[in-house]
Parts: sequence; structure tokens; C-alpha cells
Amino acid sequence: MNRIFLIMLIIGIPLSVIGGMLHFPTILMFVIYCLTIIALASFMGRATESLTLVVGPRIGGLLNATFGNAVELIISIFSLKAGLIGVVLASLTGSVIGNLLLVGGLSFFIGGLKFKVQKFNVFDARHNSGLLMFAVIVAFVIPEMFSRNLTEAKTMTLSAGIAIILILLYIAALLFKLVTHRGVYHTKESEENIETEEPEWSKGKAILILALATLVVAYISEKLVHTFETVGEQMGWTELFIGVIIVAIVGNAAEHASAVLMAFKDKMDVAVEIAVGSTLQVAMFVAPILVLISLFYSQSMPLVFTIPEIVAMVTAVLLNIVISNDGESNWFEGATLVAAYLIMGLGFYLL
Amino acid sequence: MNRIFLIMLIIGIPLSVIGGMLHFPTILMFVIYCLTIIALASFMGRATESLTLVVGPRIGGLLNATFGNAVELIISIFSLKAGLIGVVLASLTGSVIGNLLLVGGLSFFIGGLKFKVQKFNVFDARHNSGLLMFAVIVAFVIPEMFSRNLTEAKTMTLSAGIAIILILLYIAALLFKLVTHRGVYHTKESEENIETEEPEWSKGKAILILALATLVVAYISEKLVHTFETVGEQMGWTELFIGVIIVAIVGNAAEHASAVLMAFKDKMDVAVEIAVGSTLQVAMFVAPILVLISLFYSQSMPLVFTIPEIVAMVTAVLLNIVISNDGESNWFEGATLVAAYLIMGLGFYLL
Amino acid sequence: MNRIFLIMLIIGIPLSVIGGMLHFPTILMFVIYCLTIIALASFMGRATESLTLVVGPRIGGLLNATFGNAVELIISIFSLKAGLIGVVLASLTGSVIGNLLLVGGLSFFIGGLKFKVQKFNVFDARHNSGLLMFAVIVAFVIPEMFSRNLTEAKTMTLSAGIAIILILLYIAALLFKLVTHRGVYHTKESEENIETEEPEWSKGKAILILALATLVVAYISEKLVHTFETVGEQMGWTELFIGVIIVAIVGNAAEHASAVLMAFKDKMDVAVEIAVGSTLQVAMFVAPILVLISLFYSQSMPLVFTIPEIVAMVTAVLLNIVISNDGESNWFEGATLVAAYLIMGLGFYLL
Repeated sequence: MNRIFLIMLIIGIPLSVIGGMLHFPTILMFVIYCLTIIALASFMGRATESLTLVVGPRIGGLLNATFGNAVELIISIFSLKAGLIGVVLASLTGSVIGNLLLVGGLSFFIGGLKFKVQKFNVFDARHNSGLLMFAVIVAFVIPEMFSRNLTEAKTMTLSAGIAIILILLYIAALLFKLVTHRGVYHTKESEENIETEEPEWSKGKAILILALATLVVAYISEKLVHTFETVGEQMGWTELFIGVIIVAIVGNAAEHASAVLMAFKDKMDVAVEIAVGSTLQVAMFVAPILVLISLFYSQSMPLVFTIPEIVAMVTAVLLNIVISNDGESNWFEGATLVAAYLIMGLGFYLL
Repeated sequence: MNRIFLIMLIIGIPLSVIGGMLHFPTILMFVIYCLTIIALASFMGRATESLTLVVGPRIGGLLNATFGNAVELIISIFSLKAGLIGVVLASLTGSVIGNLLLVGGLSFFIGGLKFKVQKFNVFDARHNSGLLMFAVIVAFVIPEMFSRNLTEAKTMTLSAGIAIILILLYIAALLFKLVTHRGVYHTKESEENIETEEPEWSKGKAILILALATLVVAYISEKLVHTFETVGEQMGWTELFIGVIIVAIVGNAAEHASAVLMAFKDKMDVAVEIAVGSTLQVAMFVAPILVLISLFYSQSMPLVFTIPEIVAMVTAVLLNIVISNDGESNWFEGATLVAAYLIMGLGFYLL
Repeated sequence: MNRIFLIMLIIGIPLSVIGGMLHFPTILMFVIYCLTIIALASFMGRATESLTLVVGPRIGGLLNATFGNAVELIISIFSLKAGLIGVVLASLTGSVIGNLLLVGGLSFFIGGLKFKVQKFNVFDARHNSGLLMFAVIVAFVIPEMFSRNLTEAKTMTLSAGIAIILILLYIAALLFKLVTHRGVYHTKESEENIETEEPEWSKGKAILILALATLVVAYISEKLVHTFETVGEQMGWTELFIGVIIVAIVGNAAEHASAVLMAFKDKMDVAVEIAVGSTLQVAMFVAPILVLISLFYSQSMPLVFTIPEIVAMVTAVLLNIVISNDGESNWFEGATLVAAYLIMGLGFYLL
């Protein structure tokens, strides 16, 4: 498996560069870019896994979510600069529902095919549920519903205020997890898990691979974005569908790969941390940072999603909370999450 | 008690046949039909109970929900054929809120009058919560909100797609419960419960009575449906109220009777399986089957409820999840569910 | 600390009387009134605490919520008489979100600064969650959404019907807690807690202080209300902001003070009972009583909030349930609740 990815990389990276120069057909380049990113993602997954064995599951999950979302943040800033506010909001929506339903669902499903019942830290699950409720149901829904009775300027003030509150609470959450309550909610299993395996790569090598892979992913991602318009026309996809579904799947490929890998090894604490932690980072850090950055551009981005986007995110959060709040998973819970993603995907495809 | 129902049956069935032929006043026939169905329901309840003791609570609950919903499915197909899409959606809504709030509430309430605290399988409760969230909050709300920006043809495509996903996940749920995870979440109490009592009727006799009663219920239900218009006019009830409240109460009389009976005997696993299992069967099997069948008729039925209907179903699901997710019940929780049903009933009466 | 409040009282009460007579500047009187009420609230808190040690945490919490809401009920009846329906609904909203998010959040936060993890009765937490779901998500949302298709007269009928159901269920809840299930869900800790401390004041003295303080709070509150219009104009606050935020904070100062005090002493059962119990009393008793009383006035008050109000209450309830349903709290959960309150406060300020 790892060899296949290595071959994909050795072929994919030069092909990505050459293909762009020689103006290969756009659909072909689209496929090459996607496959290369997926191969890179597998390396990022292995590097993160090695690091996780050294630094523990929580910081490991954090690392993973960070490297996954760095790519997204870069793409979004480029889009924002070009005034493509609709695409940015759509890809934020896609990250939220993609991570909660597709990454989370596939982890539960594939892990559940191997293990009858998988357990993860119930305290972390509840902590995450509270933050999902806060970020999506309070911080995203309030401006959505209030903005109908507000002027544009006041909507932007509200958005900026909420963005600052979100970032402050995100920092408080890090403080809580890593400083004041570090290890308070640790279960015995999670502690034992850490020491049983040897890391594949050394700390230094893992960091180097992670950094290099992130750089190349960013480079290819940017080229990938420019193929979307042509691909959309030729495939009959709307801009909304590309933003919510395609960008999100490719952009979160790294999380997908490593979360499912972790689930398959029964390390559900890491898998859940990637799926939900990544969602929270998008909602509480990437989205508000983009709102604040947009204040410096000619066209500001209010934190106001479209109705289908907010409905998809709210129902995804409610479903994820009910399913993962007990700290247990099985293949059927995974299938339920994936089924919800398919329904939303179909909806956005038809819009 | 059982004798009274037997007498009601001996008088009710011939009276239903004769009354129809001799053109008795409609209101009188309405009352006769309802009482006969309730008497039949009590026999179905006893037959199911006998079967439950043989086959275990889960398959017993499944059996019960199936026989209760067979009647509903037949009535709905007749209505669909006649193009009465509004009535079908209203009676689906009525089944969902009726089972979750009225059947569930009365079970908790009446069982709770006898027992201080009643317990049921907490794993099943969480499994059901996840499916309720999926079926009603994701699969029903998404087409509701997306259809505003969709053409009629695309809304129908979305509805059909969701219908197929719902049925596939419903089949997956059966696979999960009966094959891959059979007995995994069994508690000790539920296993003990099964063996302590003798079934009232033999397996063969119980199946015979269940089959006969279902046939007669179907026969009378169809006649009952034709009295609704006249009764509605004379009683001042709207079509929506008849669909959501009256059809649902009479159509689910079988579930009502046996769920409350089970709760009174402290067999909460069966009572909950009937109330929630029946809801899930309506939402994940009856409703999608009707959507797919309607494709063959001149007028297709999209999975798009009215706003009051969807609000009633969503709030009913949220309330039921919060109340039953801990695997315990008491009379007050039952009263809360019934109170919610009364509020919705009043709302639909006034609409 | 207690001395400061005593001094504030000795200076504040006469100043409140004299200032009103001598027509001091309105903003000054506003500050004097607020500080005096807060000082009075601290005495009410201490009196309630003394009583709590005698009568147990549940009745103590009930007492507290009653005395806090008596003030609100009186202010609202005056407003209703004057036809200020919008202000009454806004202050009901403010009480709900203020108690759930601000009182609850500050209790969790300040208590959490001293104690790593604080526990409270998980059965009470679930009981409260069910009632919050019922009162706000069912009983408030149903008329909100149904009223769009109803005439004004029918909306009022629905509101009155729901009001009666709410009051009956509230009485049933008292019956459940104090009669049929008294002590059934008691945990060992809560029983031990009661006996370990000596009450500051005797039962008689505590009741006397509570009664006197309530009277003076009512007297000053009424005067305070009349300063709102002028203060609003001079501060640039809208009527909605004053109703939802200012009235609620000052009107619930008593609950704030004593809930936080209790949390700081690790008596979380009482703190939660005050925050959530007070919300439930507002939603299930104060609001419906006001609806029924309004039937006798020229302008009746339907139970129909504005969209921003209902969205704020629904999201506040969902967040509170997810955070407090596990019977545990820490400083970060408190920070999350307060952050949600800040977002809503900013929203209502801009509206």
C-alpha cells in the first residue's frame, strides 16, 4: 500500500509540473492533481502517526488538524483576495460537514468492520459536543437569523465581533486541554495505547516529511483550484457543489487518510480528534480568521452562510453529537453518518 | 378486561358490516369502526405478547411495528392512488409524533404510575436516537429547506434519492441488529425477562390471531377512511387535523394498546421498541416506499412536508431523545411527552 | 465583602428615595438603583443560603428562583398593563438566556477557577434538560411557527391553551420532585453536603430578611424601569436590547449573586437549580401566567416571540443541555456559556 503511494508520488509530482507547462487537458490534470494530493496525504498521515506515538494522541490529533487546515486556509485566502466570498463560505461548509460526516463516518465504518465496538474518550467527546454546539449552532446560526433585520454594516460588525469571540474561546480551549486540565480526563486505555508501538519514523524525519508534504500539497492545491471552473462546466457541477463537496474532499484528503488509518488500528481517540478537532479548527479558527482578514480587502466576508449551508451544518452537528456522545462507535453508526453526507451531497449537487 | 374486548369484537364486526350496508348515520359508524379497531388491537397486542415471549423482545417489537404499520401502508397507498398527497404526508407526520409522544408518553406515564423508575436498554435507546436524528432531522429537513431553491423535477429527484438511502440504511439497521451485533448490547435484565413468563397462546395460535386481526383491521380501516370527510364536516375538523391526529391515533391503536400493556408489565424494552421502532419504520421504510411508489402514479409525492408538520416532527424527535436517552423513565417523563402531543394536537386543530 | 454590600444598602436605599424626589440626573439614578438592587440581591443570596442549609438544596433552589422571579412577574404585569407586549416578551427572552448562559456560565466559570471538576446531580440535570426542551423547543417554537398560518384570534387561543398546559406540567413537576419522587434521585454527596455547615442566620431571621429585601427590590425595580427610556436614548440602546439584556441582568441579579456564591462553595446542585430552575419557572410559570392575565387586558399577549428572540432561546437551551447533561462542569464550560451570551448580547445590541 505504502509502495503504491510512493510510486504515485514519484510519478505524480513531476507530471503535475510538466502537465501544467505543456497544457494537458484540464480533466486529466484534475485527476493527476487529486491523486498526487491523496498520495501526499498518506505520507502526511504516516508522519503524523509517528509524531503521535511520541507526543500523545491529543497533541498528535491537533498537529494533524493543523496541517490539514493549513492548506485550506491558504486556498481560502487566495479566494478571498479574488472576491470569491461564496466559494469560501461553501468550502468552510464543506469542511464542517465533510469532517463530521464523511471523515468521521468512514472512520467509524471501516474501523467497525474490523472491531465490533470501538471506544474513545467520552470526556473528550462531550467536550467536543459542547464546542460544536457553540461554534455552529450559536455562533453561525445567530448572525444567519439576525442579519435579516440588520444593515450590511451592522452584519459585518456582528460577524467581526463573533469572529473575535470564537478565536478567544478557541485559545481558551487550547489552554484548557494542554495546560489547566491536561490529563485530567485521560482514560487508562489511551495512556496504555501510546507506549505499545514504535514510531515508524524518528521525530526529526517525521517533521521534515510533514513540512515538505504540506508545501507540495499547497503548491498542487493552488493549481487544482484553477481547474475547477473548467471541470465544473464539463462535468455539469455547480460552483456550490464544487465548493461544498469537491474542494472539501480533496482539501481534507489528509485528514481522511489518517483518520481512517487510525480507526483501522483501533486508535479511536486520534481518529475522533482528527474528524471533530478539524471541524472545530475550521469553525473556531479558520472561519473567524478569514472574516477578520476580509476586513482589509475591498469586499468583506460576513459570517452569513446560505440557508442550505447552515441547515446542512446544523443537522450534521446534531447527528454527530447524538452518535458520538457516548464514546462508542460501530460500523452502523459510521454508515449513518456517511448516509447523511450522501443526502447532503445529492442536495448540493441538485442546487 | 379481555372479556370486554371480546364482546366488543363479537358485536363490533357484524355491526360494521351490517351498518355499512344499511347506511347507518356516519358519526355512529365512525364510533363503531373506531371501537372495533381498538378491540382488534387488544387481540393483536396479546398475540404479539405471546410471540414476544417466544422470539425475544427485539424481534417481538419488530413484529408489532410491522403489523401496526401494514395497515397504515395500505391506507396510504389507496390515498396516493387518489392523489391525496397532503393527506398521506399528514398521516406520516401523525404517525411520527403520535408514536413518539402519545404512545411513548402513555407507556411511560401508565407504567410509571405502577413503578417508580422503569429501565430499558440504554444502548438501544442511543441507537434509536441516532436513527431518529438521521431520518427526521437530516432526511426530512434537508429536502424541506433545499426544495425552496429547486425546481419540482429536481425536488422529486432529491426525494427519490433520499428515499433509496433511507431504505438502504433501514436494511443495514436490520442487519446490524439481527446479524452482526445480535445480543452484543443485550443487558442481563432483558435476557432474564424473557424466560420468566409463559406465553398466553401457542406460537401457531398467536400467528393465526395476528394475521386474522390484521386482515379485519385493514378491512374496517378502509371503511373508516371514507367516513372522515363527513365526520370532519360535522365535527368542524380540518383535513390536516384528521390526517395528523385522527388517522394516526386510530391507525396506531394497535401500537398504543400493546405498548401501554407492556409498560404496565414493566417490559419497557418492548414498549420503547414499539413506540420508537414504529416511528423509525414509518420514517425509514413506509415514507420512502410511498415516495418511490408515487413515481408510478400520475402525481408524484416529494418528501416535502409543510412547515408546521416538519416543526412538529423535529421538536418531537428532540424531546424524545432528551427524555429517553438515559434508558430510564417515570410518570413525569410520560406526562411531558403527552403534554407536547396535546400542544401539537391543539395547533393542528386550529390550523 | 458582606460589609461593602451592607454599606451599599445603607447608602443606596435612602439615596434611591431622595434622588427620585429631588430629580437627580436619570443616568445617576439608574446606577444607584442597579447597585442597590445588587446589594439587596447579596442579602437575598445569604438568606436563601441559610434557608437552604435547613430545608435542603432542592427546596432551597426553588425558594431562590421564586424570590428572584417574583420581582420579574411584578415588573411584567406593570408593563402588560401599559400595553408594552414587546418589552414583556423581550424580558422573558432575556431571563431565559440570561439564566441559562450568564448565571449558569458564571457559576461554572468562577466555581471552576477554584475547583478542577465540579459535579452536580446528573438525574436533576436530565430532568431539567427534558423540561427545557419541552418548554422552549416545543411550547415556544410551535406557536411561533404555527402562528404564520393562523388568524390573530386563533393564535391567542393556541397561546392560552399552551399556557394552561405549561402551568399544569409545572405543577406536575413540583408534585414529582417534592412528593412522588422526593429523594429518589438523591446522590450521597448532596445529602452529606447539607449537614456539614451551620446556617448563618436562623430560619425566622432568614425568612424576614428575604421578605424585606424582596419588597425593597420590587419598589426600586419599578422606579428603575421608568429610567430605561431615558437611559436608552442617552446610551444609544434599543428597546429590545434594554428588554433582553439590561432588564434581565438587573432583574436576575439575585440569582446571579447566589448562584455564583454557591458555585464558589462547590454546592453545584444549588447553583444549577438556581440557573436552570429559574429559567424553567420563567418559561413554565411566569410566561404562561402573563399570557393568561393579558386576556383580561385590552391587548392580549400571544406566546409568539420575534425570530431573533426564539433563535436565541432555542440555541441557548441546546447549548446548555449539551454542556450540563453529564452532571459535571469546569471553568471552560462556563466560558463557553458566557461566550454564547456575549454573541447574543452583541446581536441584540445591533438589532
